[in-house]
Amino acid sequence: MRLGAIAAGIKYSGRPDLMLCEFRQGTTVAGVLTRSGTAGPAVLWCRECLLGDHARALVVNSGNANVFTGSTGERHVNQIAEKVATVAGCRANEVFVASTGVIGEPLPVERIVEKIEPLLSSIADDGWAAASEAIMTTDTFPKVASRTARIGDIDITLNGMAKGSGMIEPNMATMLSFIATDARIPASMLQSILVESNAISFNAITVDSDTSTSDTCLLFATGAVNSILPSSSSDPVLDDFRQALDALMVDLAIQVVRDGEGASKLIEIRITGAASDDAARSVGKCIANSPLVKTAIAGEDANWGRVVMAIGKSGERYEPDALSISFGGVRITEFAQRREDYSEDEVTAHLKGQHILIEVDLGVSGYEATVYTCDLTHGYIDINADYRS
Amino acid sequence: MRLGAIAAGIKYSGRPDLMLCEFRQGTTVAGVLTRSGTAGPAVLWCRECLLGDHARALVVNSGNANVFTGSTGERHVNQIAEKVATVAGCRANEVFVASTGVIGEPLPVERIVEKIEPLLSSIADDGWAAASEAIMTTDTFPKVASRTARIGDIDITLNGMAKGSGMIEPNMATMLSFIATDARIPASMLQSILVESNAISFNAITVDSDTSTSDTCLLFATGAVNSILPSSSSDPVLDDFRQALDALMVDLAIQVVRDGEGASKLIEIRITGAASDDAARSVGKCIANSPLVKTAIAGEDANWGRVVMAIGKSGERYEPDALSISFGGVRITEFAQRREDYSEDEVTAHLKGQHILIEVDLGVSGYEATVYTCDLTHGYIDINADYRS
Repeated sequence: MRLGAIAAGIKYSGRPDLMLCEFRQGTTVAGVLTRSGTAGPAVLWCRECLLGDHARALVVNSGNANVFTGSTGERHVNQIAEKVATVAGCRANEVFVASTGVIGEPLPVERIVEKIEPLLSSIADDGWAAASEAIMTTDTFPKVASRTARIGDIDITLNGMAKGSGMIEPNMATMLSFIATDARIPASMLQSILVESNAISFNAITVDSDTSTSDTCLLFATGAVNSILPSSSSDPVLDDFRQALDALMVDLAIQVVRDGEGASKLIEIRITGAASDDAARSVGKCIANSPLVKTAIAGEDANWGRVVMAIGKSGERYEPDALSISFGGVRITEFAQRREDYSEDEVTAHLKGQHILIEVDLGVSGYEATVYTCDLTHGYIDINADYRS
Repeated sequence: MRLGAIAAGIKYSGRPDLMLCEFRQGTTVAGVLTRSGTAGPAVLWCRECLLGDHARALVVNSGNANVFTGSTGERHVNQIAEKVATVAGCRANEVFVASTGVIGEPLPVERIVEKIEPLLSSIADDGWAAASEAIMTTDTFPKVASRTARIGDIDITLNGMAKGSGMIEPNMATMLSFIATDARIPASMLQSILVESNAISFNAITVDSDTSTSDTCLLFATGAVNSILPSSSSDPVLDDFRQALDALMVDLAIQVVRDGEGASKLIEIRITGAASDDAARSVGKCIANSPLVKTAIAGEDANWGRVVMAIGKSGERYEPDALSISFGGVRITEFAQRREDYSEDEVTAHLKGQHILIEVDLGVSGYEATVYTCDLTHGYIDINADYRS
């Protein structure tokens, strides 16, 4: 596959804001998209295209989300896909489109369309870095990750990129993430593998509890390497591939959280002993989305009582006497109160680091989940009190 | 009724942090309490006492929430109630107790118990101001409200106080609010009237989406005025009383939001055209809890696209073509996009004020709800990144 980026002047000037990937014939595709009720026309377009199982191109712009732009916005997505299809020599429904940036402004579609031809003629195999930079908005660094795996006795590669920093609590997808492998995997199998990896990666993160209208995660399998064709998505021949995809997607998801708007610390929240997977995730998300927990961590304040509050707010079951709350491996509670020998100094020392670990055992059953978030700092207010200007 | 406050040195020094009200014999009581799964022992105590329908005293401390303090915390509530009962000459289950402040620290109960006698001997009919100041934590002003109403041809009075500034998204109650009337109303009727008024007041506000472990709202009817005894909670003789209670509780709830931690603006969100009451409230809360909407308002930025995002995140039904979003009475959208003649200048001018009005008509049916919140500013981070110190 070849890819690259160009400056189209959509909103930012003097930096690339349009990226394009071209895939070889036979590339299969899987995708998870936002469940927002106000999803943009590019998301609806991708949903249609996924029915065809195949992809030949992906075009993404930053600087404008093309969301809540009515029938005009739909027309714009069509125009872009048609243009790419004509120049690249494929069908329009093999062209995946994504947009990210401000909501509600009409997309300056002409600026995009006129750049498609020069962009297509400049793309190359080594364009990952340039492409991952072109999809940034409030991101402070580009997010890429790579893994290798074996399918049968063939080595395959997985490359991925993501963007996202605010409006991050993906609901069945992430802000934007694009992953490609040279393995040969039919689209239906690719889809079920992607959904599983997504559950423990992009769907396990939150920056600010707000769900984007544009969340899109697409996984392309080009088949450039002639790996053995699996018989189903659970074929053991794919075990190594699944593990590599899990690792790559968790890597990208954590990069998104590390680059959360204004973030100074990554917070990992491990919930164990829950009554179900959903209960574990719900408690984890309640802690991760609490502005009081996130500001306490920003202030390096061992205010573990706010974790108690968040557990209570979740409404999920816990056993008061068995409930265990630990920060940085230091157990704080037992018998529904603070331990007698609890030393706040140790916890305070842990909070001075950049990777904060909060562990909660609910003492009910054996289900667990891990959720990732970041702290809430003055930087978030700075960025969002005047994002559009 | 007589009330007053005293400095007990629970956490703050040199300011009153313990308040006590004494009610005449025959006072009925109704209450709504937090639904948090980690509610404190004072909340559980009040829940028990409410079964008895009668109240003789209310004692409240600030500076320590007495939450997640195990069996010790339960014992402390008992000790306080027993002490008041002995000194005041009533039963312990007629003594209502509430605590607010930090979670997880043992309550210095001796400091409270030793102040009960001097406090009881100093209370007076005009102690409302002192009492409302003693229950403050991060509040910047005391919150009181008063109304009069007629029951039959008798004039009655309603007085109320509230505290709350952060950890405010009450779930069936508010942080702390105490209301008293001299009317004669049986407890069961008082309870159904309170639940209805609570739905449109304290349950319609949010500061930071976090639900307190101590939310308590109690309504006392002393019967000092010999008003006509209503036959049921829906007796038309109570119509004026209900209206006065609604007005008083909305007044107190809005005071809590105006004093939201770090708040510079009150945001009123009116949802109309919803498929149900619940749907209207859900969309309103989604907008009110979005950190992106709240920071945009703090920055006086007409970023209405974030309201679109919040509507989408709610998952509730809307008719795209009929959906109407207005800021300060200026309609921004029609036909699922920005209006052609939309003037951002008018909206920006409205956002410079201190009372921001966001109106959303979902275009589905006739249900509606109004929700109140405040903006999210640097002040919230300042207060919460180091609250305990």
